[in-house]
Amino acid sequence: MSSDPKVKTIAVLGGTGREGSGLVLRWAQGGYRVLIGSRDAARAVAKAGELNAVIGEDVIRGLDNVDAAREADMVVLAVPYAAHEDILRSVADVVQGKILVDVTVPIQPPAIRTVYVPEGNAASLEAQALLGDGVRVVAAFHNVSASHLPDLAQGVNCDVLVCSDDADAKNEVFQLVEAIAGTRAVDAGPLANAVAVEALTPVLMYISKRYKVAGAGIRITGLE
Amino acid sequence: MSSDPKVKTIAVLGGTGREGSGLVLRWAQGGYRVLIGSRDAARAVAKAGELNAVIGEDVIRGLDNVDAAREADMVVLAVPYAAHEDILRSVADVVQGKILVDVTVPIQPPAIRTVYVPEGNAASLEAQALLGDGVRVVAAFHNVSASHLPDLAQGVNCDVLVCSDDADAKNEVFQLVEAIAGTRAVDAGPLANAVAVEALTPVLMYISKRYKVAGAGIRITGLE
Repeated sequence: MSSDPKVKTIAVLGGTGREGSGLVLRWAQGGYRVLIGSRDAARAVAKAGELNAVIGEDVIRGLDNVDAAREADMVVLAVPYAAHEDILRSVADVVQGKILVDVTVPIQPPAIRTVYVPEGNAASLEAQALLGDGVRVVAAFHNVSASHLPDLAQGVNCDVLVCSDDADAKNEVFQLVEAIAGTRAVDAGPLANAVAVEALTPVLMYISKRYKVAGAGIRITGLE
Repeated sequence: MSSDPKVKTIAVLGGTGREGSGLVLRWAQGGYRVLIGSRDAARAVAKAGELNAVIGEDVIRGLDNVDAAREADMVVLAVPYAAHEDILRSVADVVQGKILVDVTVPIQPPAIRTVYVPEGNAASLEAQALLGDGVRVVAAFHNVSASHLPDLAQGVNCDVLVCSDDADAKNEVFQLVEAIAGTRAVDAGPLANAVAVEALTPVLMYISKRYKVAGAGIRITGLE
């Protein structure tokens, strides 16, 4: 990795989706160059134009997933679980040597408020197994509700639990967390601990519906 | 169940342990009659005497696990995961028709700060499968650190996520949560969602060690 601690270009694969586009917007606002990746490059270009208009600056570009992943310093994966494996296979070569931040939540629609444990226990563990040791997989941002990301005037009231087997990669992702106002990065341990972080998302979706709130999040207590 | 909404007698199997004895103390203080269950009745009797002295009242009794479970209106299981299945088998007959609150966290020592996904995905799902439909299993209290329970002068800064497939059983357990000052009960959905709640505990133990704090907990945001 570069000796500059701040990643310059982030690709968000699945950046046309609700969670992905919200993250794109926050990071673009935070001073990063952001690439939106999509299976359909035209859709990525359209979404980039839309989000640049919100920011009032031309810092977001749209590409297909593979080109976006190839150009970026750091790659963020925010895709439906059903597409997770296929998209990982398509970018496996171009993400070697990079950090891959996996935001994917393993759910089985229509039961989106019920925890689903995938074969590899966590989407991010499956990503690490598929990509091999040449890629440092970090699990993060799963618990930040998409409903809170688009309103740039509002901070996000949620801690971001960050899991990885690579301490340096965790530290680099901490900077991406700091770029989203209101959040706090918490080192949540090895990648195996992503099981808890991923599984918490359908629980938060259940809680949001049950208590009729816009997007429940979490805070770790006892750190103050 | 009785038409009286408040359970009168709670058995805590594993009530001689750190988490179990802390819960015993809080519930005894909250006005419940509490039975400590242990594989060794003499140890349960000794621990009951010790905790009654703390409370300054004679509301806790020690018994072996089976007798404690038989006598109680509601049974709480707070045992090491390695003993979970054996103890469940030993009380399976006497808990039929009752609520069983499973506090067990599936960990594999010595890796107590790393999530371990058991064969049945969650200890409480394994309990429900083993006990059958005649027992209403509720998962709760996993994230309340044992280190905060003994000091009765201090509230516990933690939400208690409660999962079950039975809505009435969840409501009865909500009352046990209210008896512990500082906590807040949150309906976290069906028992399948206990995967997240159980897995969060080794993550909180990791965070506590990593940030050198006494016992990290969680709060759900967005409900206020």
